[in-house]
Amino acid sequence: MRVLGVDPGSRRTGFGIVDDQGGRPGYVACGVVVSISGTVAERLHRIFSGLAEVVEHYRPDVCAVERVFLARNPDSALKLGQARGAALVALAGAGLDVHEYTALQIKKATVGVGHADKGQVQHMMRALLGLSAQPSADAADALACALCHLHESQGLQSRTRAISP
Amino acid sequence: MRVLGVDPGSRRTGFGIVDDQGGRPGYVACGVVVSISGTVAERLHRIFSGLAEVVEHYRPDVCAVERVFLARNPDSALKLGQARGAALVALAGAGLDVHEYTALQIKKATVGVGHADKGQVQHMMRALLGLSAQPSADAADALACALCHLHESQGLQSRTRAISP
Repeated sequence: MRVLGVDPGSRRTGFGIVDDQGGRPGYVACGVVVSISGTVAERLHRIFSGLAEVVEHYRPDVCAVERVFLARNPDSALKLGQARGAALVALAGAGLDVHEYTALQIKKATVGVGHADKGQVQHMMRALLGLSAQPSADAADALACALCHLHESQGLQSRTRAISP
Repeated sequence: MRVLGVDPGSRRTGFGIVDDQGGRPGYVACGVVVSISGTVAERLHRIFSGLAEVVEHYRPDVCAVERVFLARNPDSALKLGQARGAALVALAGAGLDVHEYTALQIKKATVGVGHADKGQVQHMMRALLGLSAQPSADAADALACALCHLHESQGLQSRTRAISP
């Protein structure tokens, strides 16, 4: 199974791709779709087309995005929502199931504690995936989201096996 | 010039299309893209594909959307943002310029006063465009947005003519 994690943002959208290699995560790729210049519509379209390219190139089986609770204020919530809308349309348009995880689930599954800061997530992604350099904060968040989905779906499989005859 | 007005919403996205008929607005079509059932990603993709179909069918030259200030709370701002993101990606993806107008500009240009309620906008759209029935609230808001763009661009043309030699 190949999982694409996405961390949408109005200016930088992180993506990270991991494979399930017999119960261990294998790093495939990570990066950032930058959408800083142009009108709002042009920037959102860059998020959409950038992620569509990532999906086309890496062909993930499933996708994971952080669920947003309690955005800080209405203005930042609107901007984040627009970026999420552009990203989710690209993923759903490619026929991918999109799973959502809370920040707490993602940090517990990857760093082991729910209150980890961005630096800890970057450090753990480098360690867990054996990367030669630390990924950027947005790419690390996206990788963590993808790893969380691997973790959750493996947990589900082992629980399912445990109750099978 | 053919203008597409869009009023994005997480459950109902209104659209309205008007032509400039020698300085007078001519009604073309209006309606609503409904996105109520399914996952968030599926619903956003319905907004995207619904508007893409509208653009494909009616071939507007330009597009107008209400600018959002001061959303009520972070949760509704996030949902509205996601719907706007899906809509703007469809419009920008079709190569359309997207103009944004404030609610005040739209109501002043169409109803004549800035504090008009939804019922007044519906009533005025029916009267101004000679419709046989009142459009739904979402479709009326989208038509008002399209009319506002016609009004603003005609105003710009006449001001440009006035200062030409």
